[in-house]
Amino acid sequence: MATTKPARGMRDFLPADVRRREYVIGVIADVYQRYGFEPLETPAVENIETLMGKYGEEGDRLIFRILKRGEEAKTGEADLALRYDLTVPLARVVAEYRADLPKFFKRYQVQPVWRADRPQKGRFREFYQCDVDAIGSTSMVVETELVAAASDVLSGLGFSNFIIRLNHRQLLVGMLDSVGVPAATHGDALVALDKLDKIGGEAVARELEARGVPETAATTLLELFTAIAQAAATADQNPAGFNADVLARLGGLVEGHTRGMQAVTDLREIVSLSAACRGADRLRIDPSLARGLSYYTVPDLAGSLAGGGRYDELIGVFLGQSVPACGISLGLERILVVMTERNMFPESVVASPADVMVTIWNADTVEDAVRLAGELRAAGLRADLYPDVDKIGKQFKYADSRHIRFVTIVGDDEAARREVAVKNLATGVQEVVPRTAVAEYLRSNLLSR
Amino acid sequence: MATTKPARGMRDFLPADVRRREYVIGVIADVYQRYGFEPLETPAVENIETLMGKYGEEGDRLIFRILKRGEEAKTGEADLALRYDLTVPLARVVAEYRADLPKFFKRYQVQPVWRADRPQKGRFREFYQCDVDAIGSTSMVVETELVAAASDVLSGLGFSNFIIRLNHRQLLVGMLDSVGVPAATHGDALVALDKLDKIGGEAVARELEARGVPETAATTLLELFTAIAQAAATADQNPAGFNADVLARLGGLVEGHTRGMQAVTDLREIVSLSAACRGADRLRIDPSLARGLSYYTVPDLAGSLAGGGRYDELIGVFLGQSVPACGISLGLERILVVMTERNMFPESVVASPADVMVTIWNADTVEDAVRLAGELRAAGLRADLYPDVDKIGKQFKYADSRHIRFVTIVGDDEAARREVAVKNLATGVQEVVPRTAVAEYLRSNLLSR
Repeated sequence: MATTKPARGMRDFLPADVRRREYVIGVIADVYQRYGFEPLETPAVENIETLMGKYGEEGDRLIFRILKRGEEAKTGEADLALRYDLTVPLARVVAEYRADLPKFFKRYQVQPVWRADRPQKGRFREFYQCDVDAIGSTSMVVETELVAAASDVLSGLGFSNFIIRLNHRQLLVGMLDSVGVPAATHGDALVALDKLDKIGGEAVARELEARGVPETAATTLLELFTAIAQAAATADQNPAGFNADVLARLGGLVEGHTRGMQAVTDLREIVSLSAACRGADRLRIDPSLARGLSYYTVPDLAGSLAGGGRYDELIGVFLGQSVPACGISLGLERILVVMTERNMFPESVVASPADVMVTIWNADTVEDAVRLAGELRAAGLRADLYPDVDKIGKQFKYADSRHIRFVTIVGDDEAARREVAVKNLATGVQEVVPRTAVAEYLRSNLLSR
Repeated sequence: MATTKPARGMRDFLPADVRRREYVIGVIADVYQRYGFEPLETPAVENIETLMGKYGEEGDRLIFRILKRGEEAKTGEADLALRYDLTVPLARVVAEYRADLPKFFKRYQVQPVWRADRPQKGRFREFYQCDVDAIGSTSMVVETELVAAASDVLSGLGFSNFIIRLNHRQLLVGMLDSVGVPAATHGDALVALDKLDKIGGEAVARELEARGVPETAATTLLELFTAIAQAAATADQNPAGFNADVLARLGGLVEGHTRGMQAVTDLREIVSLSAACRGADRLRIDPSLARGLSYYTVPDLAGSLAGGGRYDELIGVFLGQSVPACGISLGLERILVVMTERNMFPESVVASPADVMVTIWNADTVEDAVRLAGELRAAGLRADLYPDVDKIGKQFKYADSRHIRFVTIVGDDEAARREVAVKNLATGVQEVVPRTAVAEYLRSNLLSR
């Protein structure tokens, strides 16, 4: 017998799973469309040279390669590969269709990607990414809108206590330069500082020393980061004040460092513009934030539900000239896990696959059952029709097992009187309704749920 | 420079393409949900042995194989493959989750499949399939509902003059047996008869003879098929009468042939039950219909927009026991081509990516522009925001190039009076509206389009 399991690290999405996914994607698409973003889809399969070399050595190893087909198939050579993320295909599309695309190309894209990772809990070889990018402008309006839209998405999905952390790569450079960390040690210093909330100040100090960061520099950085982390704990009470304080402090530190000062100006502008958006209170300047893919060069949307930043150089790989680009990737899979754990889906999403099931009374009334189902569907209801002539109790049981709340019964008496009996399987209540009023009866009872 | 083309035979879907696809898929999903069908999604990548041997020799050759990853990668062996259709994955899913799925599993699935076909006009290596299947019942109610739902989909998309042709594999067997075509010659006879409308009666007669069909049998079949084809030409005037006549004639022919007579009974039941559905007038019994994939064993939904049938044996390959299964595949790609050629998409689908574009008056009013865009979005409008501080004429031009009909302008005077100027770029008309009334003003003007 053939195996019936999905391939390792891949998942089948049964109907309840698909409904949850489609609900989340629907909220996302709705928000982004209101912000003027447009949908894009690219092929699952790319030429192998489009992908290779874009994701570092480790990434290259995780790319699924597809064997050459046709005449040349015998060589065992791979000429195609599965999409590894949505950013490289976007860069390719921007380069290929530059003349057809608007000058400011704002797109969202929700598609699966494939990575030959070792499968483990919560990590899969096929998973959806949900990317939103704005191409063509260096204006801080872009960052502001990306942050505001992501905030709207999370709020729209029912998340209420998230924060969005924001940093600037050039600010990091400015800070490290200003306190006297040699440029060659910047990367090491950031890796150590990034562990502050996990291993504590003393351990980070030891690590900074081990990595060759001068002691005075380490002390200054640690004091600064510790002070900001302490202030952040109560930032909820006055987010605007917190951000202003942090920026003032950082501005003082990078005084005289051109790129660092520009970074503070940029961040100040994003904070200021965000005050005009609903998600403004979510925003926290966080100079310790240094994660993100290597092509993100400026800010970063924080935490485990989303992340992003500016990556002006990537499109240049395909186009020969760099193009301003800034984006956010929503962690769709992570969002789904959290929402499922917390029961955050509306009743209508997790509910039954139909509003009503039409039963078949006996072999002579099959056609009438088909007709009734058609009437209910024409009225906009989701009506399932039991396909076989079975005992009525068995039909009820089937509807109940599928969590369909209502069943219709048209026995000989009901048929003669042009009536329909409607039974609520949850309450056991059965009422007889004129045939012409069934849809309306069901609709009002469904609403009163 | 890296290549920027999509891989051979693959397509990028730019925003206007995605909007058209999503519209069609939306109509399809809406209809099927009203019929109680549920969404299913399976991975793009399957274990290679799940797919091999299910599509015939030619099919096996067209399957894209994926190289083994990880430790064993060096062997050049393929252990995975790209999904080739949606039916084999469905059969695998039904076998794997039998206990969790309802006894009657009605699912729709809209996902891409990949075939290493030689690319040519209108044929691609990645394309969407849209399958609808009902598993678990042998009732003719299933066929009736599949036909009715497909008819609702096509009507819902705006097709008005389609017909749905229906045949029964066992009726073909009964007919050929009854007129004296040897069983071994059935396949050849059907291939020849299938060409009747293309090459004419005489040519088919010659081909039947060449393929070893006895002359009397050939004459009987040709007379029958020709008569039915002639009647079909005017069947629109009385579809029910046409179907009754054809079935009476076929019933006479297969008299005494058990399976053939059962087939006529089945078809009669589908026709009779369909009379209770809105698409009944679309239905035409067509005994010449013999196409379809090899695992379809009973009826066939006709023409180039969709096709399907019963395939009770396939699930058995995975489950060890055959399970009743019947389905229809809507030709999503073909539907999109035809609808695009005929301009069948509603205005809202092909329209601009935003209802309004908010302009930025000068560097001092960026924050106010962000705020106005937020107000319009909160009111449910799709509001794009020009990101840069540019000459206002340039901003208008940009909005116009994207077919965005309205732009807002908040100059110094408007700001002082808490007003917004709204310009209709199509008519040139500009009106000044109180800030609090802009969303309502736009909404009513968008509706009056």
